[in-house]
Amino acid sequence: MNRSLENIDYLFAPRSVAVIGASNSPDKWGFGIMSRMVRKKPHFNVYPINPKEKHVFGLAAYPRLTEVPTDVDFAVIVIPPEYAPAAMQDCVAKKVKAVLVITAGFKETGADGARLEAEVVRIARSGGIRVVGPNCNGHFNTASGLFTTGEEDIKPGPVGLVSQSGNFGGYIVRQGTDKGFGFSKYVSSGNQADLSVEDYIEYLAEDEDTKIICAYIEGLKDGQRFFRLAQQVTRKKPLIVLKAGRSNEGASAAMSHTASLSGSDSVHDAAFKQAGVIRVENVDDMVDIAAALIRQPLPQGNRVGIVTVGGGFGVVAADACRRLGLDVPPLPQETLERLNRILPARWSHANPVDMAGTVHSSYGCIGNMMKTDGVDAVLVISCIGYVPRLPAGLPAETAESLKNYHKMMVEGELKLVEGLFDRIDRYRKPVIVAAVNDRRESKPIAKLADYGIYTYRTPEDGAKVIAYLVRYGGYLARSQ
Amino acid sequence: MNRSLENIDYLFAPRSVAVIGASNSPDKWGFGIMSRMVRKKPHFNVYPINPKEKHVFGLAAYPRLTEVPTDVDFAVIVIPPEYAPAAMQDCVAKKVKAVLVITAGFKETGADGARLEAEVVRIARSGGIRVVGPNCNGHFNTASGLFTTGEEDIKPGPVGLVSQSGNFGGYIVRQGTDKGFGFSKYVSSGNQADLSVEDYIEYLAEDEDTKIICAYIEGLKDGQRFFRLAQQVTRKKPLIVLKAGRSNEGASAAMSHTASLSGSDSVHDAAFKQAGVIRVENVDDMVDIAAALIRQPLPQGNRVGIVTVGGGFGVVAADACRRLGLDVPPLPQETLERLNRILPARWSHANPVDMAGTVHSSYGCIGNMMKTDGVDAVLVISCIGYVPRLPAGLPAETAESLKNYHKMMVEGELKLVEGLFDRIDRYRKPVIVAAVNDRRESKPIAKLADYGIYTYRTPEDGAKVIAYLVRYGGYLARSQ
Repeated sequence: MNRSLENIDYLFAPRSVAVIGASNSPDKWGFGIMSRMVRKKPHFNVYPINPKEKHVFGLAAYPRLTEVPTDVDFAVIVIPPEYAPAAMQDCVAKKVKAVLVITAGFKETGADGARLEAEVVRIARSGGIRVVGPNCNGHFNTASGLFTTGEEDIKPGPVGLVSQSGNFGGYIVRQGTDKGFGFSKYVSSGNQADLSVEDYIEYLAEDEDTKIICAYIEGLKDGQRFFRLAQQVTRKKPLIVLKAGRSNEGASAAMSHTASLSGSDSVHDAAFKQAGVIRVENVDDMVDIAAALIRQPLPQGNRVGIVTVGGGFGVVAADACRRLGLDVPPLPQETLERLNRILPARWSHANPVDMAGTVHSSYGCIGNMMKTDGVDAVLVISCIGYVPRLPAGLPAETAESLKNYHKMMVEGELKLVEGLFDRIDRYRKPVIVAAVNDRRESKPIAKLADYGIYTYRTPEDGAKVIAYLVRYGGYLARSQ
Repeated sequence: MNRSLENIDYLFAPRSVAVIGASNSPDKWGFGIMSRMVRKKPHFNVYPINPKEKHVFGLAAYPRLTEVPTDVDFAVIVIPPEYAPAAMQDCVAKKVKAVLVITAGFKETGADGARLEAEVVRIARSGGIRVVGPNCNGHFNTASGLFTTGEEDIKPGPVGLVSQSGNFGGYIVRQGTDKGFGFSKYVSSGNQADLSVEDYIEYLAEDEDTKIICAYIEGLKDGQRFFRLAQQVTRKKPLIVLKAGRSNEGASAAMSHTASLSGSDSVHDAAFKQAGVIRVENVDDMVDIAAALIRQPLPQGNRVGIVTVGGGFGVVAADACRRLGLDVPPLPQETLERLNRILPARWSHANPVDMAGTVHSSYGCIGNMMKTDGVDAVLVISCIGYVPRLPAGLPAETAESLKNYHKMMVEGELKLVEGLFDRIDRYRKPVIVAAVNDRRESKPIAKLADYGIYTYRTPEDGAKVIAYLVRYGGYLARSQ
């Protein structure tokens, strides 16, 4: 690893943490941070720094960092900007390795703020300290239980995230959590007075807990370095980027937000493509494609086989595939004949395979699609998570027979899900499931998620994910 | 109303219903329909028809419809296709007014099926019966408690829906229900051997319970009639159409699905636009725009004022607006000055208004945006539903002060929400709320929904909804 990034280890896995601006008042940032430090019971010592309080959250508070009796690896600064230089001075005196500055009111506010920011960084550098922010909203490492962000109850997982907007970063974390996957590390980069998006990506590229890197970027500090780095990273880990500031309005909002210059969008687009960066248009796409990359193999080509319980979904899915440049090829005679043997006469006899309501045929149909040579990826719609909740209020005898029927149906879906795991390994083709009947309590959907396969809300979302996988797979194949 | 459509009243609000194919076996369609008939306790008599059972769901079963002792307004047919002509014969004998044929295996399967379908319709017409389907999956009327579809627990509301795909229709109903709004009537039109999408739209246009009409269309039976009708309908009710079959693959899937000819997509596009139809690309858009039309006024122009708690959202929202042809204009000096008085110095001083974390300023900022002359619609991001859940595991004293703080924050949001109702009425401008922190238990979001204002998942979705409202508002203004 780039040696200058070694101190980032202290940012994510410190042995001791000081919170400069720790507070007992719920309207202060220093309250939220302390509340997470206390509740998470992390494996590091916590030192609240507050000149007016004896205790914060029951822990002994110190008036100044320099009065803490032991070493401190990492400090968070959440006090007004005018006090930041003195606090950083104390960090230098205390030989702190990394400092995260939540405080806003620096470069993003104009020339005076920029001068103050430069002063804080100058002091930090005099002591070899690496700085996150200022004007950021924290970071987390699920492995060490360290959460300076407002997000919490985030499960550990393979996705690492860097965001130039703290609020937006939190939003991405919540959306990923809703989708069902976990995160390794997260950092909000703020004004990037010292450490920048490029540094964090370089760090996450080496981080063993991180298998997929996501980044929300408003502007690049060093475009050349970014693209050199991205070219290396994308060969070993997917790098998914949401680059904001496409329009003039967006660009000027980015300037006032984190003092970022957005740069020319078309230049970015071309460079991202050349570096194998997966560029997404919005957070939904970022979360959807990240979820797919966790466990699904990359397709060898763009030919999609569609299997659906109900007709309209096939129509919409074929439309979506075509719009995205995917092929929905005719099926070879051999596949048609095999499908004829398991489906009723009224099936569609074509791709999309409309099973005409015979959800129990899903197992055979999906298997046949996967083993068909001319199909690179399978889009499954409504076959999993199909069984609805048991309704209440039925006569006893009917309720009993319905319950048994449901049980049988759910067992069928569970068998299908288990079969998928084997088949994905055997055929090395992605199977993207649009669970449009999605019931939160669906056991088969939960089983898929336990295995690292997440479902999509709509046929269009499923097609979109396949298009992204095809593009990334094609890039890797060409660049080998 | 078109007199030929009068019998549709019997379809939605019959005094008595026969289920031909009622069953005690959970794997049969006739089971699900009966289970809803019994559990809903609707205001009509139910007659199960089944030659092999004495009782179905505890109700006396009749071997044939002709043996039911009283009048029957409406019958559902869920028996194999070859028995459908005889069943329809009985419906004629019994003077049934409307028949819904769930059964598949007709025109969509080829020439033999087409002949059988023509025979069933010929018999129906000999008795003046109107037919829904065949190859459909039911309908509902929330006002009468009649649910022949699989969907249930659908709340009454202003949205009426027609769908050429039953599965897809059910999917739209579930998505709308998840969004929080209710439905008036729904019908799956299937093969449209008699009644077609055009008929149902004409009926819903006159239906007092329906304020907004949604339609999923694979192919039009009579394009000219549709467009004449749409031109009339869209002046009094919004008509939102999802037209599938854009691509060749989609079109051929539609043919095999409901025997529909999709027609040229660009011709449809132009005709839809001319008739004021709100054409959407997918179900999410349909549901999102329907939700907005329930309570929001239409904007007078395309100028959007954006208010956000956190910076990144403003960047993304401005980008999305621009992409959709919306204007994000500079704010007049007067508005800037008023905002300066309520916001801290670090606010963005421009549109988007980034409140720099001061969520308590939302009330003043949104109010000022609404009263600004150069703003036609307000996009609010993250100001409502901002307050997270109370975390567990805090020390008692801290937990108490946090609880009070939360209460104060939620009360602030509730005050904001109440203010919105007044202001929407006063300024007649739509306020689209992207509740990106969306917590399901948020009281302010629930209060908004009670009033008929629904929130959106992302800034992009919010911008998209405004773009649709601007387009429809522009159409109505031009066509007056």
